[in-house]
Amino acid sequence: MAKKIITISREFGSGGRTIGRQTAERLGISFYDKELIEKVAKESGLSEQFVAEQGEDSPTKNRFAYSFLGRESNGMSVNDYLWSVQRKIILELAEKESCVIVGRCADYILRDREDCLHAFICADVKKKAERIVKLYGETEKKPEKRLAEKDKKRRLNYEYYTERKWGMAQNYHISLDSGVIGLEKCVDILADLAGME
Amino acid sequence: MAKKIITISREFGSGGRTIGRQTAERLGISFYDKELIEKVAKESGLSEQFVAEQGEDSPTKNRFAYSFLGRESNGMSVNDYLWSVQRKIILELAEKESCVIVGRCADYILRDREDCLHAFICADVKKKAERIVKLYGETEKKPEKRLAEKDKKRRLNYEYYTERKWGMAQNYHISLDSGVIGLEKCVDILADLAGME
Repeated sequence: MAKKIITISREFGSGGRTIGRQTAERLGISFYDKELIEKVAKESGLSEQFVAEQGEDSPTKNRFAYSFLGRESNGMSVNDYLWSVQRKIILELAEKESCVIVGRCADYILRDREDCLHAFICADVKKKAERIVKLYGETEKKPEKRLAEKDKKRRLNYEYYTERKWGMAQNYHISLDSGVIGLEKCVDILADLAGME
Repeated sequence: MAKKIITISREFGSGGRTIGRQTAERLGISFYDKELIEKVAKESGLSEQFVAEQGEDSPTKNRFAYSFLGRESNGMSVNDYLWSVQRKIILELAEKESCVIVGRCADYILRDREDCLHAFICADVKKKAERIVKLYGETEKKPEKRLAEKDKKRRLNYEYYTERKWGMAQNYHISLDSGVIGLEKCVDILADLAGME
């Protein structure tokens, strides 16, 4: 059957977000990355910055931080509350329209829908390091360390909320090494698969 | 660059071997699965049956079994000896010709060659169970148990000899869920990628 929704999980620096955006453009469907953050911030009452930084961060870091956002948060930790809002919005989006959704455990949240294609984008450390330096510039930290830290957060977040191992091929319908295959070819493959009968 | 060699790692029942054979046919290159077993048996002096059964089995099972095959085995356990012969033959094949190689840690053995495309094929348990019952018939053991046992052996073998985690997307250039994508489409994608510039 044709795939209405594409979820993109990605290593930091792999170009997964760019692949997602270009796939959405190619297919003429919505793209949710920053747009998802805005929605979650609005719905949760949390700031966009907090949602952007914490929405894929290790939940155990803030284990004892509770939100004081009124009855919606229902005594949950602030990360669990953020997760619950993200989950609700992702489920609503999938109901409403064709789209590409980047990160935020969308593959897991939408695992029972048959009209989804779940993709994982990775690349070797050298390629990813080159990419983040080109995109975001140098910092005092070595790019390899920046990569490791960011992906560690994503991994802990994913594993905490899904009880699955982040990056296991079995969690996705397709995984691609963007460094070897190239970003454009990744887009070709995903756009083609989305139209599958 | 064009990819001269395609390695296929696969879950039992995922159709990875069939995908590999059809990809080799499509590209008009050699296919090594049973053919590899024959070569390894001939070179090692071990029986084809032993190579077929043990070549991807847990090496720790036979930790105290040593081969008595003369000086070539050099005091290694029989599984380490088998591994060393398999490794040598896979390296020689890659030097010699374009081909598709199924299993036997070929992705790891050939990891430093840039002219290889490393693929992993998986599928969900239901699809794999249907496939093995269709291909190999029913047995007293439930298909789910047969799948789990076979993949456990492959996993232990892979992890023992490569120190990598079996099935991690990062070990491969592409991973495909054959149950969702379909065997024919998997062949299309791999054959297309092999010709990449």
